[in-house]
Amino acid sequence: MLLTAAIDATAAAPWVLLTLDLLGVFVFALSGGLAAVRQRFDVVGVLVLAVAAGLGGGILRDVLIGAVPPVGVSDWRLLSAAAAAGVITFLFHPRLPRIAWSITLLDALGLGLFAVAGTLKALELGTTALTAVIVGVLTAVGGGVVRDLLAGEPPSVLVQRELYAIPAIVGAVTYASLWSAGLVSPFITWGCVVLTVTIRLLALRLNWRAPAPRPAIDGG
Amino acid sequence: MLLTAAIDATAAAPWVLLTLDLLGVFVFALSGGLAAVRQRFDVVGVLVLAVAAGLGGGILRDVLIGAVPPVGVSDWRLLSAAAAAGVITFLFHPRLPRIAWSITLLDALGLGLFAVAGTLKALELGTTALTAVIVGVLTAVGGGVVRDLLAGEPPSVLVQRELYAIPAIVGAVTYASLWSAGLVSPFITWGCVVLTVTIRLLALRLNWRAPAPRPAIDGG
Amino acid sequence: MLLTAAIDATAAAPWVLLTLDLLGVFVFALSGGLAAVRQRFDVVGVLVLAVAAGLGGGILRDVLIGAVPPVGVSDWRLLSAAAAAGVITFLFHPRLPRIAWSITLLDALGLGLFAVAGTLKALELGTTALTAVIVGVLTAVGGGVVRDLLAGEPPSVLVQRELYAIPAIVGAVTYASLWSAGLVSPFITWGCVVLTVTIRLLALRLNWRAPAPRPAIDGG
Repeated sequence: MLLTAAIDATAAAPWVLLTLDLLGVFVFALSGGLAAVRQRFDVVGVLVLAVAAGLGGGILRDVLIGAVPPVGVSDWRLLSAAAAAGVITFLFHPRLPRIAWSITLLDALGLGLFAVAGTLKALELGTTALTAVIVGVLTAVGGGVVRDLLAGEPPSVLVQRELYAIPAIVGAVTYASLWSAGLVSPFITWGCVVLTVTIRLLALRLNWRAPAPRPAIDGG
Repeated sequence: MLLTAAIDATAAAPWVLLTLDLLGVFVFALSGGLAAVRQRFDVVGVLVLAVAAGLGGGILRDVLIGAVPPVGVSDWRLLSAAAAAGVITFLFHPRLPRIAWSITLLDALGLGLFAVAGTLKALELGTTALTAVIVGVLTAVGGGVVRDLLAGEPPSVLVQRELYAIPAIVGAVTYASLWSAGLVSPFITWGCVVLTVTIRLLALRLNWRAPAPRPAIDGG
Repeated sequence: MLLTAAIDATAAAPWVLLTLDLLGVFVFALSGGLAAVRQRFDVVGVLVLAVAAGLGGGILRDVLIGAVPPVGVSDWRLLSAAAAAGVITFLFHPRLPRIAWSITLLDALGLGLFAVAGTLKALELGTTALTAVIVGVLTAVGGGVVRDLLAGEPPSVLVQRELYAIPAIVGAVTYASLWSAGLVSPFITWGCVVLTVTIRLLALRLNWRAPAPRPAIDGG
């Protein structure tokens, strides 16, 4: 019954979910394409890195929960969205910095949606709430890690100081907690997405930082 | 019936398939061993990198399509071929540059065989043609990506300008298209391997290059 | 019957196994946290890298043998041990170098336990002895590879000269050989752990080194 309710929750407005899902893949793929351009990769490298960044998180999620083949290699719509982002990056990248704020906004949207969608998919497959949270967070940040490793850069989720993983953790924990309490509704699903996005954007706007380790003290 | 036909197609000359399969693993493993020597790894590092490069693509393929444990960790013949390449690299690497052209030729052979074999294995497990193509290409290029990441080098499939992924894509798309049309025969299987190898070698010989992104224009 | 015997073997003293298992995760997670501190990551980065290093090997193992979702994302005790190591590293890292020898000792213990536990888990799931050995070794060294890749460092298992993979291989081969011969007992299980740890510590103490490749000779 919970399962049915959950499917209802996401099925309530399937075109909205699909739109945002494709948007999430698309935006993460844009970030992958831009990383490839920075590294002076050719058109194949730009496409490969766009696809890896857009689909990497979902593939990791599906491998971990045993949903193989992953939708990232089986759903043509997701693949098309990622490839389109690669082509657009290749053709129009000199103009992309002008829309940097839009990209940051959409990236935050992608983070929120993927965190909730990853958690939801794991819960529907019968995992515990803990597993679902881990899988949700990995879905949200996984694509970026793959992108950075392939581009030869340190993973931005590890090195950047603005909160990135924490909003995803908050969103996934909130969603899994409510689900475990039997609270499943479209309002909750979208509320958790909005929560994640809001925390991420507030962190950027207000320059929230996670604390860094103290420097080691010689002889201390 | 298609499935049966496909098995017949590859079963027609099993020793040829096995020979080329082992050769593919062997050659990719040689490239891994050489990368380890360049990085001054010790004998364990040379062996590990040879095995990772030789078997990485097939392991990635099998994890994605749920064929676990992957043949890369279960078939002693593939493991032996990869380990043998590592030992040979360790012992004889000063002579390997002399046979650089042979290695490039065999590497192209490996690319062609793995692209077709990966596509075929996915199709036999009932995936869609799209999934099979993605899996086939990942099989062909995956080992090299693992090798380069472990060796601390940028993935050559992303940074090298001669066509590498594109021949694999052409071979996989052609094979999956013909399969979907019901055309399955040994002639087609080997034809797609030859097609992939030919495009790769022509790209090298004629110096075909994929276009690079335009430089960003300040103020543009 | 063998399966039952094996379970008995590990079930004989479950609290000891759990203790050492948690200790292994904990110690590998400490090494991940310290790598993050070296790279000046913030508290999130320290936690993420600690968890990745502590759980990475087990997740890789479970994905390869199809035991999904991996215990690394489903068992709260392992997750807690890894997270606790991350928090401790973040708070107390200036003092950790003072206990470097303890860490090296515990790391060797982790290597031994994970090599045997990985081999055992694969054998129990019905793999061949060869597959079990590969899986056991990957379990033992996998977490460190994930840690080093995420931290942007060359994998220490490849670059460090003291024997690291070899003790794990010896332990896994010995355990799988005895299992295949029908010899399964707590004594054997713990004996293989001790064997692995001893070889690792002897290699460190006596400065055993694996041979490096000869330099390439110009014109040779």
